[in-house]
Amino acid sequence: MKESPGVVDLLGVLAYAELSAYARMTEDATTLAPSLADRAALSELAVTEYAHFRLLRDRLTEFGADPDEAMSPFVAALDAWHAQTRPADWLQALVKTYVGDGIALDFYREAARHLDPSIADLVDEVLVDEGRSQFAVEHVRAGIAADPVAGGRLALWARRLVGEALSQGQQVASARPELALLLVESAGEGATDISRLFARLTEAHGKRMAAMGI
Amino acid sequence: MKESPGVVDLLGVLAYAELSAYARMTEDATTLAPSLADRAALSELAVTEYAHFRLLRDRLTEFGADPDEAMSPFVAALDAWHAQTRPADWLQALVKTYVGDGIALDFYREAARHLDPSIADLVDEVLVDEGRSQFAVEHVRAGIAADPVAGGRLALWARRLVGEALSQGQQVASARPELALLLVESAGEGATDISRLFARLTEAHGKRMAAMGI
Repeated sequence: MKESPGVVDLLGVLAYAELSAYARMTEDATTLAPSLADRAALSELAVTEYAHFRLLRDRLTEFGADPDEAMSPFVAALDAWHAQTRPADWLQALVKTYVGDGIALDFYREAARHLDPSIADLVDEVLVDEGRSQFAVEHVRAGIAADPVAGGRLALWARRLVGEALSQGQQVASARPELALLLVESAGEGATDISRLFARLTEAHGKRMAAMGI
Repeated sequence: MKESPGVVDLLGVLAYAELSAYARMTEDATTLAPSLADRAALSELAVTEYAHFRLLRDRLTEFGADPDEAMSPFVAALDAWHAQTRPADWLQALVKTYVGDGIALDFYREAARHLDPSIADLVDEVLVDEGRSQFAVEHVRAGIAADPVAGGRLALWARRLVGEALSQGQQVASARPELALLLVESAGEGATDISRLFARLTEAHGKRMAAMGI
């Protein structure tokens, strides 16, 4: 099969993104959920992330790549992202799950857009929503209805998440040019295409914010 | 079906034991594993614990019990157990997974021994080993081979785990007499039967220690 040189990087960053999202969502569920039912609901989403990690790791192995080596260039940036965006309460945790991961997933999906269909399908499979959005949207809307001041705080929080995501993303892109190239190839040749790519990402982010009512 | 009054307690304590073991093993994997492969291996075991939690929670719901209410009497004792036995390194985490959970699981199995077969089968299913022992035994033996002094430290650690488990178990038993009754009924009527029960538990613990070579 035709393999773009950035493919192992893409699967590696995605695999570590899923593994670290699983760990972080588990921790948020355990320390921040207001009830055992909420804790179980967020844990359920975390376990789904782990299942996605497993698929990506196994695909890396099928490619003859060492999963640890493929993931390791991205550990520092993704750990830094989680350290910089540690939620202080349950609603912040849900906004992070939905908005923060949403932006990251949009980028991965764009990067996979013109790859071999077997890779693009795998990326689509691990990026499937699985009820995460609905869970976050319902709980965040209910939280803001109960405490309207929370809306303003969460809007600031979402802005910070976007800023941190772009900052870490930029570092990853400059350290891994082949991965960045996938995004540029996906966008097309010209500057107009790049700005269309950013317009798509911004629009998707705006839709998520609107869905939560913030 | 014939339901012993302690059954909801037994499924409740088991469900929270699985939910909290999942969270704790995920954290240990994330913070203590020496490699990404080890982190994934312990996370895999953690995710299995979550699947067991899901089975127990669903069975409680089928019984018409509220899972949150069934679990809540046991949250404090199990959280205290984890807080008192936070592993300081990877080998301590593995010994805790094997020895600490092993003792708890032996108690649950004894309590389920004379229950309705559909309950006893469910308890057997969620207590199945799933490779946890083999993973812990292999890694702990290798760790001691590489650093013989570690063996003595881990033996002390295992003793502390047993002490904390008995202390929390005693508190649970005195707060939930119907659950404690399941154990006594399982053992039989006389003092000899109770001492046989403890002999069985002690023997199982000794086997685990010997398997790890400590």
